[in-house]
Amino acid sequence: MKEYNDYSVPGFLASAVSAGLKKTGQLDLSLIFSQRESVGAGVFTANKVKAAPVLLSQERIKKGPLRAILANTGYANACTGVQGLNNAIQAADMVATGLGIHPEETVVASTGVIGAHLPFNLIKRAIPNLIKSLSPRGFRSVAEALMTTDSFPKMSYFEGCAGGHRFHLLGLAKGAGMIMPNMATMLSFLLTDLHVDSQTLWPLFRSAVDYTFNRITVDGETSTNDMVLIMANGAAGNGKLDSSGLKEFERGLTDVMGELAYLIAKDGEGATKVVIIEVDGAATRGDANKAARVVANSNLVKTAIFGQDPNWGRIMAALGRSGILIEENKVQIWINGVRIVNGGLMTSEKKEREAAEKMKKEQITISIHLNQGRWKDRIITCDLTYEYIRINAGYRT
Amino acid sequence: MKEYNDYSVPGFLASAVSAGLKKTGQLDLSLIFSQRESVGAGVFTANKVKAAPVLLSQERIKKGPLRAILANTGYANACTGVQGLNNAIQAADMVATGLGIHPEETVVASTGVIGAHLPFNLIKRAIPNLIKSLSPRGFRSVAEALMTTDSFPKMSYFEGCAGGHRFHLLGLAKGAGMIMPNMATMLSFLLTDLHVDSQTLWPLFRSAVDYTFNRITVDGETSTNDMVLIMANGAAGNGKLDSSGLKEFERGLTDVMGELAYLIAKDGEGATKVVIIEVDGAATRGDANKAARVVANSNLVKTAIFGQDPNWGRIMAALGRSGILIEENKVQIWINGVRIVNGGLMTSEKKEREAAEKMKKEQITISIHLNQGRWKDRIITCDLTYEYIRINAGYRT
Repeated sequence: MKEYNDYSVPGFLASAVSAGLKKTGQLDLSLIFSQRESVGAGVFTANKVKAAPVLLSQERIKKGPLRAILANTGYANACTGVQGLNNAIQAADMVATGLGIHPEETVVASTGVIGAHLPFNLIKRAIPNLIKSLSPRGFRSVAEALMTTDSFPKMSYFEGCAGGHRFHLLGLAKGAGMIMPNMATMLSFLLTDLHVDSQTLWPLFRSAVDYTFNRITVDGETSTNDMVLIMANGAAGNGKLDSSGLKEFERGLTDVMGELAYLIAKDGEGATKVVIIEVDGAATRGDANKAARVVANSNLVKTAIFGQDPNWGRIMAALGRSGILIEENKVQIWINGVRIVNGGLMTSEKKEREAAEKMKKEQITISIHLNQGRWKDRIITCDLTYEYIRINAGYRT
Repeated sequence: MKEYNDYSVPGFLASAVSAGLKKTGQLDLSLIFSQRESVGAGVFTANKVKAAPVLLSQERIKKGPLRAILANTGYANACTGVQGLNNAIQAADMVATGLGIHPEETVVASTGVIGAHLPFNLIKRAIPNLIKSLSPRGFRSVAEALMTTDSFPKMSYFEGCAGGHRFHLLGLAKGAGMIMPNMATMLSFLLTDLHVDSQTLWPLFRSAVDYTFNRITVDGETSTNDMVLIMANGAAGNGKLDSSGLKEFERGLTDVMGELAYLIAKDGEGATKVVIIEVDGAATRGDANKAARVVANSNLVKTAIFGQDPNWGRIMAALGRSGILIEENKVQIWINGVRIVNGGLMTSEKKEREAAEKMKKEQITISIHLNQGRWKDRIITCDLTYEYIRINAGYRT
């Protein structure tokens, strides 16, 4: 298996520097650059309060090709008005000039505290060095530079074959709070050397985001800054993708984004456990999603998981308040494979003890069967802990 | 000012005992009894998973008069199926027999762990003693017996005048988690010696509940067991209420339930601060409520308040994801009277420091003006703390 450090995708360069945005002196400004023309697509936060980098990047990526992504941590550049938008545009301009590309091919992504202005001088001073450091092996440092309250860098890699051509797909992401995509405070960048045209790329990408990043939640919060971007630069040399090539690409997208989404949930702020909420037997597609989401966002379910308590009553209560079609006496619940609830009642104290034992594991799967219909869904989340409080009660201090 | 211990309402008796339902030996079973015929009304949880006592009491209270309320803590008697319902019925029957009233005039209320069966023998053994201890001065002990994770008993009292007759209204309540009424795990009982007919009582009561108990949230959770009950026994001797009498009664209801609701939010599990979220200028009535509710339930807003951090960006982010009509550049936010946001931007660092100073207080009012229309609403909540995690990660152990 490849080490993180070895991940690369033909035709892409990357770099990261410490521009002084993080007080700790860690990497905080990063750049990804495609040496070739490249097709881009993006999915952006559903929050109506959108950060300046979201407004700018969303507009640019709709229009045409994408060659460069500049990302900073420490400052969200959200709720910063005209000056914030100006800062985002100027940063992109500097990068474009330095790389000799068109400003419209350059987008920016930010994450950090809302409401404060970007220390633009620090960014300006760091950009030349950032461009000079670009390298095919720079992706690990980008993943590090994206980290805020993340405890580890998040990368995922896929190699596939399409139309007889080997291709690569690399994904980078950050979590770790304000996570309920649609999107969450998450940034993710995907890079592939596959040739895909824009009309093909957008729907595939949107659908893969929906099944991966939009199926996680840390705290039910949706950030002002989320974005997932993809660049496809065609260095693999393939022609138009046939259906098997498309399938392979789709598999790659789902694999890479699925792994990144899982890692984000696992690394949720303060999390000690990653939790998979599976709902089956819902009356409608919407019910399946809502049931899984409400259980996944229940503070009482999440604290019980932290306490390793198979407190199924809280799961029942969450389902009951979710607004879905439910008949209490038809509900079944399994915790890591142990059927703890049948017909809405506890199966036995022995099963409860078994479930309690299983809850010591690091990954908890709660499977719920509603027995109302044929729809299912799945949301990945994490537990709610003291550490979440510590991180978020003291974030800005 | 009267002491809690002195609160009484003509024609009502109350008592509480320790039946052994709480391991600590504290009071855990209580009874309220009207010596006279009495009119009742009730509002019950909106959760579709309803505890046995909710199912039973909801049915009985619709039918006719109400004379006695038996309440226990320790066991919710929820998700307990037919046996749970049977236990609730039998407990009510025993009380009715002991008091010489009709079983249909007797309701039960429970709060505690979901899914476990009531230790019916303990309850059965305690009921005779409970009836023997009934006293006009027993209400303080009922308020104590209702406590679970509450840190203090909750009572509120009102004396008014209607049609030349002095009347009394006493309210008792418990909080303190799974609180987002509609209802929350809250029980509340109101007792008045006013004569009010059933057709008058129900709508007044429902509307007062909606403006008080349904305007608080601790953790966005709605319990399986919530109920608010009122008994009006006519001992005051008034005739049919005229409009000024109705107004006075309405004021009493809103005062008493408003105070109890405030106390529940203040005593939210682990809370160090009570938080009032005021929204004004919303485009619709629904938007005003939703905006206040989403901000009040935001874990990130609540942890920031615990950290005494005037992190207005999180308020903006919560508003943005709430689904309401919002224009970022029209939003104004005040924290305890300090205008920290104007036109969607921070007013000044000086104001932020001022707001930070104000956040050291125990009561935090966040006022939001959306400048979209004329609707307003208000939700009372509390902060999210280490102690909430401690309580809920270890509740059953």
